[in-house]
Amino acid sequence: MTDRLAELTRLFPDLKLSTDPGDMEHHGRDWTRRWPPSPLAIAWPASIDEVQGIVRWANQQGVAVVPSGGRTGLSGGAVAANGELVLSLDRMNRVLDFDPIDRTLTVQAGMALEAVQNAAREHGLIYPVDFAARGSCQIGGNVATNAGGIRVIRYGNTRQWIAGLKVVTGTGELLDLNRGLIKNASGYDLRHLVIGSEGTLGIVVEATLALTAPPPPSQVMLLAIPAMDALMKVFAEARHRLRLEAFEFFTDRALHHVLAHGAQRPFDDAYPFYVVSEFDAADAEAEAAGLAFFEFCLAEGWVVDGAIASSDAQAAALWRLREGITESLAPHKPYKNDVSVRISAVPAFMAEMQALLTREYPDFDVVWFGHIGDGNLHINVLKPTDIDNASFVEQCEHVTSMLVDTLARHGGSISAEHGIGLVKKPWLGSVRSEAEIALMRGIKAVWDPNGIMNPGKLL
Amino acid sequence: MTDRLAELTRLFPDLKLSTDPGDMEHHGRDWTRRWPPSPLAIAWPASIDEVQGIVRWANQQGVAVVPSGGRTGLSGGAVAANGELVLSLDRMNRVLDFDPIDRTLTVQAGMALEAVQNAAREHGLIYPVDFAARGSCQIGGNVATNAGGIRVIRYGNTRQWIAGLKVVTGTGELLDLNRGLIKNASGYDLRHLVIGSEGTLGIVVEATLALTAPPPPSQVMLLAIPAMDALMKVFAEARHRLRLEAFEFFTDRALHHVLAHGAQRPFDDAYPFYVVSEFDAADAEAEAAGLAFFEFCLAEGWVVDGAIASSDAQAAALWRLREGITESLAPHKPYKNDVSVRISAVPAFMAEMQALLTREYPDFDVVWFGHIGDGNLHINVLKPTDIDNASFVEQCEHVTSMLVDTLARHGGSISAEHGIGLVKKPWLGSVRSEAEIALMRGIKAVWDPNGIMNPGKLL
Ligand SMILES: Cc1cc2nc3c(=O)[nH]c(=O)nc-3n(C[C@H](O)[C@H](O)[C@H](O)COP(=O)(O)OP(=O)(O)OC[C@H]3O[C@@H](n4cnc5c(N)ncnc54)[C@H](O)[C@@H]3O)c2cc1C
Ligand SMILES: Cc1cc2nc3c(=O)[nH]c(=O)nc-3n(C[C@H](O)[C@H](O)[C@H](O)COP(=O)(O)OP(=O)(O)OC[C@H]3O[C@@H](n4cnc5c(N)ncnc54)[C@H](O)[C@@H]3O)c2cc1C
Repeated sequence: MTDRLAELTRLFPDLKLSTDPGDMEHHGRDWTRRWPPSPLAIAWPASIDEVQGIVRWANQQGVAVVPSGGRTGLSGGAVAANGELVLSLDRMNRVLDFDPIDRTLTVQAGMALEAVQNAAREHGLIYPVDFAARGSCQIGGNVATNAGGIRVIRYGNTRQWIAGLKVVTGTGELLDLNRGLIKNASGYDLRHLVIGSEGTLGIVVEATLALTAPPPPSQVMLLAIPAMDALMKVFAEARHRLRLEAFEFFTDRALHHVLAHGAQRPFDDAYPFYVVSEFDAADAEAEAAGLAFFEFCLAEGWVVDGAIASSDAQAAALWRLREGITESLAPHKPYKNDVSVRISAVPAFMAEMQALLTREYPDFDVVWFGHIGDGNLHINVLKPTDIDNASFVEQCEHVTSMLVDTLARHGGSISAEHGIGLVKKPWLGSVRSEAEIALMRGIKAVWDPNGIMNPGKLL
Repeated sequence: MTDRLAELTRLFPDLKLSTDPGDMEHHGRDWTRRWPPSPLAIAWPASIDEVQGIVRWANQQGVAVVPSGGRTGLSGGAVAANGELVLSLDRMNRVLDFDPIDRTLTVQAGMALEAVQNAAREHGLIYPVDFAARGSCQIGGNVATNAGGIRVIRYGNTRQWIAGLKVVTGTGELLDLNRGLIKNASGYDLRHLVIGSEGTLGIVVEATLALTAPPPPSQVMLLAIPAMDALMKVFAEARHRLRLEAFEFFTDRALHHVLAHGAQRPFDDAYPFYVVSEFDAADAEAEAAGLAFFEFCLAEGWVVDGAIASSDAQAAALWRLREGITESLAPHKPYKNDVSVRISAVPAFMAEMQALLTREYPDFDVVWFGHIGDGNLHINVLKPTDIDNASFVEQCEHVTSMLVDTLARHGGSISAEHGIGLVKKPWLGSVRSEAEIALMRGIKAVWDPNGIMNPGKLL
């Protein structure tokens, strides 16, 4: 154990700390698996005091700190490949408070998203941010990436649900931001600066989450769509006629992989595109609206087949087709793009993008899916087994540089919801101007003057 | 004309500029009327170029700049009392774009809120931020104060509706923030930092506003409430049974002043408290829910009289009782508090506050009203004609210092929605910690290194 770690142990004898190779390997990486983990050690503080102590120690010793949540991140934000101390929130995972009148749940940052959802439901309310990594990702990680997911169309991103945040800054100061107030016009809203800052300004240690009433009963519908240009027409019609909970799309290739991973085939025939949509269906009228929507799209030729879940089990089976994609692709070491444009720009952008990908990836399996109702597309390029990872990534990054030009023409972003991390650093300048990046650097220096907070990520 | 202004005129021959005493008087103050206006001059740029040019000139010449909207602000944020250049957005008041698919309206920052609401309605949509200053206040001012208003309970503050912002920083850089994207996880969200920054970081020149579908038809109900401790019980019941659009409260004293200002008396008898509530009433069932809510509250003794509007004119008359308050008080040079606590803390806080105000203001007319469903109370202390303004303010500030202690005990804020400006600067430290204020100062220095943007306000 190094002198620096010995000093940390001396300061905090009860701090759980490990340099075990297995722990280092496991906690030094996230879902990207591109950078070989090489942390200094893993620390599991159990209190805010310990978090502050670690940060002060890190400043004194010049040690970099990587805040670490569920490590389900897809941009390398939680990777520790340069001798950083990994500060894992795993042990800070309790509910601290529930207020039925304010409808808020205060939790430690290491609580898993799904555990938060369950805690809300126990009180007859919901925490509506949701996506497939719910079992592992943590509220702290969700805040740090402003996580989106499958209900953004109805409920917005994580940002919208954060009524208060406790944050330890890069100098070890504890901030208690906004304290659950609905209205608080008292200067710069630092809470919103921390949301989406990917661990580069400080460590989220607690969050007060706004909850809401559960939606009425809903229906889940799977649609088969014959052509790309029908997709956004179906979306416009759905948004107009229904109260949408979700509107998610995926391609034939995506379906192929989920089926190979054990999901159940929904239709006898194959179609180029699919949509899973969920919408309020509280009464017969709302159900009829769903049917009318479907029949209209069928008559227009925008939809060629469909299925409506008639039980919770069927609904779960339809959802699995969409939610199982990321996991089904993982064994293929996918290279991921996570792009967004304004909804109005989706059709033109998608057409251009499809042409680009078809031209540039003649031999690779390219899988599309995403939160199309938010203008957000995920593109996964699967690594053929006979190419080494470095040259595969190089080829993909070459295409990404072209994709970035296409995005720029359509006013889009290279990172819709996964964050910049390490993966998208080369293209930050395509979506944020020099002046913006200079301001970000300046702000970072104010919060973290010694640059110990997740250095090399994002900026 | 000073040398500095001559230089500005030389640089921008077409810039509208005035040192006319009437203009200086008119544009050097906001609704507070506490500080005698004393600007250097008033400038009305007509383009972003001119705004940038003014800021660059101001940096060179060491001139302070006060961004100026509709000057309906209640915290002195737009006051120019120290030789500042007032930069008025009045001439930048056009709609630039509407997108029916994105449901966004892009406007120049000088557009009045009401004009924006009307433009949205022309497209069958609504911009839902709303309050009594709508005819004069501007989108730029709304963004700079993160304005709230009477629909926050349903739609949130201004923050929630800003899909993009163009901002000229304190160094004259133009930032094009977020560009209308729903999802954009590409570093610190500077847009949210500008929202609520009261003109101290830069000048908002354009905003892309999210619009939404109009709500179903609604009903407006006035309730007479016999005792303070019934108020939040009525609110809880309303929130539980109805889909609320608004829930606003005011006291007998407030009603007194609106009636004196020409409004129509709603009930024969007087009651201590009143609530104006608006809720969805799309169908007979929803209307029945409204009635059932009323009857339940009546049976519980929480409500002792009520009126439901049966026409638009009647609804407007009921709303006028609430919306006319601020204007009816203006001739009495009110000293204003604008405080908030969490909803759960309202009953205990209000009881303590009432005791404090009764004790400390034995001889003054104290008028309460506000957005009680958001935990936000406005307290207006009216100036007796026989006291000079300085000693009146001094007395009130003495009481405010005590109120601040009460607020601190209940986790509240000294500024719910009006901002800190000049009025609440002495108490910023009661709601934000030293560490937070140090971060704000640091951020301000990054955006505005020469300190020319609205100096002395907020920080
Ligand atoms: C199957 C799957 C599906 C997914 N679907 C979605 C989706 O639909 N939408 C979406 O937005 N994302 C999605 N993701 C990505 C990922 O789950 C989210 O980004 C999630 O928010 C990351 O949380 P985490 O706790 O795993 O964070 P980590 O991966 O541990 O960290 C992510 C970033 O946050 C920082 N961080 C973590 N904890 C803290 C803290 N307490 N304080 C400060 N910084 C911290 C890290 O340093 C890092 O920069 C998916 C991932 C997987 C594997
Ligand atoms: C009758 C009445 C009722 C009101 N009701 C409410 C209410 O319910 N809720 C509420 O929140 N407020 C309310 N207010 C307060 C006020 O209307 C709001 O704060 C409003 O947002 C101010 O807008 P404005 O254009 O008048 O701003 P101004 O008063 O001109 O300026 C306010 C602040 O914003 C800055 N600013 C103005 N324009 C810009 C710009 N383009 N770029 C950068 N900074 C700028 C100024 O420097 C100043 O610091 C009310 C006021 C009145 C008179």
